[in-house]
Amino acid sequence: MNLSKYKVPSTKDIKLADYKTSEGKKEDNIDIRDYIIPPRVERLKELHLKLHAEEKKGIMVVLQAIDAAGKDEAISYIFSNLNAQGLKVTAFGEPSDEDKKRDYLRRIHDGEPDCGQIAILNRSHYEEVIATKVHNLLENEDDDIFEQRYRQINDYEKYLCENGFTVIKFFFHMSKKEQKERLLKRMKNPEKNWEFSFSDVEERKKWNQYQKAFEDMLNHTSTQHSPWYVLPADDEWHTRHIITEIMIKILEKIDPKFPKITGEDKKKLDQYIKLLENE
Amino acid sequence: MNLSKYKVPSTKDIKLADYKTSEGKKEDNIDIRDYIIPPRVERLKELHLKLHAEEKKGIMVVLQAIDAAGKDEAISYIFSNLNAQGLKVTAFGEPSDEDKKRDYLRRIHDGEPDCGQIAILNRSHYEEVIATKVHNLLENEDDDIFEQRYRQINDYEKYLCENGFTVIKFFFHMSKKEQKERLLKRMKNPEKNWEFSFSDVEERKKWNQYQKAFEDMLNHTSTQHSPWYVLPADDEWHTRHIITEIMIKILEKIDPKFPKITGEDKKKLDQYIKLLENE
Repeated sequence: MNLSKYKVPSTKDIKLADYKTSEGKKEDNIDIRDYIIPPRVERLKELHLKLHAEEKKGIMVVLQAIDAAGKDEAISYIFSNLNAQGLKVTAFGEPSDEDKKRDYLRRIHDGEPDCGQIAILNRSHYEEVIATKVHNLLENEDDDIFEQRYRQINDYEKYLCENGFTVIKFFFHMSKKEQKERLLKRMKNPEKNWEFSFSDVEERKKWNQYQKAFEDMLNHTSTQHSPWYVLPADDEWHTRHIITEIMIKILEKIDPKFPKITGEDKKKLDQYIKLLENE
Repeated sequence: MNLSKYKVPSTKDIKLADYKTSEGKKEDNIDIRDYIIPPRVERLKELHLKLHAEEKKGIMVVLQAIDAAGKDEAISYIFSNLNAQGLKVTAFGEPSDEDKKRDYLRRIHDGEPDCGQIAILNRSHYEEVIATKVHNLLENEDDDIFEQRYRQINDYEKYLCENGFTVIKFFFHMSKKEQKERLLKRMKNPEKNWEFSFSDVEERKKWNQYQKAFEDMLNHTSTQHSPWYVLPADDEWHTRHIITEIMIKILEKIDPKFPKITGEDKKKLDQYIKLLENE
């Protein structure tokens, strides 16, 4: 799979409209779900287990999207397959009054991975350059507050990368038409009602502002150390497949290994084996 | 399945030796693993999803055992099937120097569930009445320090229960012979070496002291609100099956439901559906 076409370059600006929201793979659902993804998830599990065993590196996965674009489902169907011991999921809603008294990255630290973990951020510090921007929540501040935040976020992620934590970011790119269908499905199915919020429809009115904020975010914060990937989110299972492949690629680059007992410890191990066998 | 026989009564003392470490179901492995557990795990997932959707109650699951008794595997094979969004796993190792400056329950708060979550504690506050006791780490303290701790722990768990958080505790009861086999397997397989620690063999020398500490713990802290279950841990898949059934029973008692939109909100929903359809 050619993953580079989903990657936002760090060196030049992109237009979000140039990225497809669908590659016409909606119809391949069952094939991708039942035959293509399962063996790749097995591969992902194997690599994740080694990451967890080695405890040397960690991965922070940032998920951002407009409502109903499929973040939660990517967690349910892909990341939930991983061993719960090396996995951490943190959802970031609206900041609380307490959060607002603090610098905006403070609460994000709770979502960071330990070595040996994959940490998923379901929404993240990026809300501070998306929702905040669309709703003009910083209207009294300097005009260049967002330029400053992009730089701060890049510095923060660079710091994490330099300290052993890969930061990888997925943007779920969905068409306005697809969102309409998904919201209506949630609204009409009583078992899905709980996933729906009236604000989803309200926010939809600001669709264009959101697209602009996303585009700005992608152009300012897709860096060499922590790139953004733009996913064709109308194709649900295809999107989950792409995520799986990107995660495998990152983990293969980290190349974690089961710790081996060597040298003096190997001798000690052999002694302990004898000790236990002759007990 | 008769689950009551695994439960430690709150009203009278038990002998750990009276609980079986095996029910001869080791040989049924494949049947239990491939046919009996999968549909029950589906049921567990369904209930967990509702717990997560409702966000009214939470469950704290405490896992305690001697080394190699199967805690990690229970997490890998049973709990890892649940949706990662409503699941949290925290492993408690030896307390750090910082932890030691604090009351012993302080770090445990990080492992507590939110409403809508199942939180697994891989080891827990119970180490403070096990390892601490076996190793005489509190030798300068009063003799009745453990009596005091049992009461404090019971009070803490009662507080959690009264505030919407069920506390359920599993003790993995393994025979000395089975531990020997499992440790040797880890020691001899280079891919499993990382799961082995020399201290496992050292701690094994204190087997009887550990059994006594476990027995005291079970007798003092199996309460009506937060009972202990003693699992026949030699039978790995049978044990995982029992855990699954107990979790289902607890969740069925909580009886979580998908939130429904009713009353004024239902009218508003119908308006929003029209609004969106006619967009």
